[in-house]
Amino acid sequence: MEYNFSDRLKTLEGNAIREIFSLLSRPGIISFAGGFPAKETLPVAEIGRITADLLENGGAQQLLQYGGTEGYSPLLESALEYARRTGIRETSVKNALIISGGQQGIDLVFKAFLNKGDAILVEDPTYLASLHILKTYEGRAYGVKSDDDGLNIEDLEKKIKAYKPKILYVVANFSNPTGKTLSLEKRKAIAALTAKYGVIVIEDDPYGELRFAGERLPSIKSMDADGNVVYVTSFSKTIAPGLRTGIAVADEQIIRKMTIGKQATDVHTSTLSQAIIDGYLRRGLLNPHLKEIIPVYKTRKDAMINAIRCYMPQEIAFTDPDGGLFLWGEFQNGFDVDGAFKEAVAETQTAYVSGRTFFASGDVTNTFRLNYSMSGVEQIDIGIKRLADFFKKKIAKKIAK
Amino acid sequence: MEYNFSDRLKTLEGNAIREIFSLLSRPGIISFAGGFPAKETLPVAEIGRITADLLENGGAQQLLQYGGTEGYSPLLESALEYARRTGIRETSVKNALIISGGQQGIDLVFKAFLNKGDAILVEDPTYLASLHILKTYEGRAYGVKSDDDGLNIEDLEKKIKAYKPKILYVVANFSNPTGKTLSLEKRKAIAALTAKYGVIVIEDDPYGELRFAGERLPSIKSMDADGNVVYVTSFSKTIAPGLRTGIAVADEQIIRKMTIGKQATDVHTSTLSQAIIDGYLRRGLLNPHLKEIIPVYKTRKDAMINAIRCYMPQEIAFTDPDGGLFLWGEFQNGFDVDGAFKEAVAETQTAYVSGRTFFASGDVTNTFRLNYSMSGVEQIDIGIKRLADFFKKKIAKKIAK
Repeated sequence: MEYNFSDRLKTLEGNAIREIFSLLSRPGIISFAGGFPAKETLPVAEIGRITADLLENGGAQQLLQYGGTEGYSPLLESALEYARRTGIRETSVKNALIISGGQQGIDLVFKAFLNKGDAILVEDPTYLASLHILKTYEGRAYGVKSDDDGLNIEDLEKKIKAYKPKILYVVANFSNPTGKTLSLEKRKAIAALTAKYGVIVIEDDPYGELRFAGERLPSIKSMDADGNVVYVTSFSKTIAPGLRTGIAVADEQIIRKMTIGKQATDVHTSTLSQAIIDGYLRRGLLNPHLKEIIPVYKTRKDAMINAIRCYMPQEIAFTDPDGGLFLWGEFQNGFDVDGAFKEAVAETQTAYVSGRTFFASGDVTNTFRLNYSMSGVEQIDIGIKRLADFFKKKIAKKIAK
Repeated sequence: MEYNFSDRLKTLEGNAIREIFSLLSRPGIISFAGGFPAKETLPVAEIGRITADLLENGGAQQLLQYGGTEGYSPLLESALEYARRTGIRETSVKNALIISGGQQGIDLVFKAFLNKGDAILVEDPTYLASLHILKTYEGRAYGVKSDDDGLNIEDLEKKIKAYKPKILYVVANFSNPTGKTLSLEKRKAIAALTAKYGVIVIEDDPYGELRFAGERLPSIKSMDADGNVVYVTSFSKTIAPGLRTGIAVADEQIIRKMTIGKQATDVHTSTLSQAIIDGYLRRGLLNPHLKEIIPVYKTRKDAMINAIRCYMPQEIAFTDPDGGLFLWGEFQNGFDVDGAFKEAVAETQTAYVSGRTFFASGDVTNTFRLNYSMSGVEQIDIGIKRLADFFKKKIAKKIAK
């Protein structure tokens, strides 16, 4: 039969990045396109031990049974404690909801607040999944200008006034895609402005613990005097993404609506996943693990920045992040790096992600994102050189025309 | 601040059954209100062994890493094979999507097809979560009359014509809440009628493998000539609900839209959960496990039916299911068993679920659901006697008035 799909999904294509994975799984490709944690850093042995202990324990049946939508009680406590590392003051589990990965947190806040046609603001560029999820709620996204230290505050206020958004979505630490971090002053300004205008903030913080330079900054949520900030984080980048476990922290009323929304989709997050994460946190394994993995990310980021300095043409400006998984390139001469993607992969066997899909407007073609977490130092050097050679050749051609 | 929640969640309360759990967790209560599998039947030791093997294996990193939204490839194959036990002919994994429990399957089909205000049909009464999820899409549900062997086909056609529904939601085997099973003829009629009128069918089959009497019947999906049936099942009742893993089987176009919808919420189902279920299926543990647990359910169902025959007043008609977890009582004299719930629990320390929330219209007050999977035989006898005494007293009072 001919299917009459819903308006929200009728024309919606898959998330652009997940869609190019098949292209990139070919052997020999050096991919800077992904956004996974380095697989060598995943704590397989520890999780094996924790799981064995959990399942040999007398209470193991509970881990295989249905659980509360709010989350596995021990994890609600330990994950809230984890979130409090960012200065969050909430201490009651009534302010917390266990989610099936950080992305579900975004989905549930949208579900709780957005009607069709409602506006949200995002940093331009922003994490593309937030734009993708928004489409399933038939909302409208408007981009706020971005400075070196994140959101431009004047533009934020201007756009709050112009579009009356219900939600501001922001990644405060080592943003995906740019690697930028919001300054302390800007965090304060965002907390104050959004409270003033009654805008809900989704503070998405998947990378905050992966800081390898500079000083730790308090979360926007820690400055939330009015209950308008929802803090969302996950254990995907710090422990293991495959377990699909995270936490949202917000006002009790918001948590209640998010819980009802979650009840209506996956009922609750895998109890076994939750218990594993809880075991990991309670055994004090996280800090030593971070101490091990942060140098891995730093080494790779440094290798990429060095290779960029060596090989890349002057016409591209790059960010140099203090943490996280990504850095960002921008052609100052307007080169169409978006259109060149397929040719670049074919010719260089090296992949980036075009920045286009990270913009609310979707029409910026001179930017690209590079991931440094998934490749070794040597590969990073080779891949950046290959891309640099390709870009130089293309730029030279463009000038020759 | 005062929150301006979305229309879909503004007035939506939690799923009625999950909400009464807190009431029922008090010690000493005999609860026939839940719907969990018997916890003694959860295969803790086998899952412990499978998990240990998985995590000691060289490829274990993959189980902790991000995976494809479609599902973990080995499980896509083994779970599709599992679904094919119902006569389903699909053999390509392009017709399958791994879901985070059966309920997510319902959510994703609604997401793929329903706009605000769209109509769906359900059996009256039906699984209440389908009505709850529908509210998050602002759809309208209409009830189709139910005979002893499920949906009334004349009423179904009448209501298809009257309401032009996009979707029919049906539990073909041992329905929740009534325990009824659709006859073979009715399955054929539903497949034919819905194809004729272009109605999508969600065939939700969580209990099909828990048959302890009568003959196995082919799924409606196995009779689907036009690609309008989505088959949804999970491993929650046959292996372990806490792992939140199931499968949907449908036309490739529908699976594609559901996949895009899933991408926008939990990205993918816990990889570790998926690998555990796959290991369980591939080791051939399911059939021996079913052989062990089905007699447990049968014994408990028989105990409940016996107690009902001994103690319950004639004024209540009960179903006597061939499988699943539930049976259904209906007061022939119109007694308000819904209104009597709190008093019944307080006086008898025994709980049922009022049938009211299982009806699309929500205004039926003389029915109730009893679960027999979560109590031992002795408790079942005691609990039914207590409820029977309470009901007799109430009926006598009513007549005396």
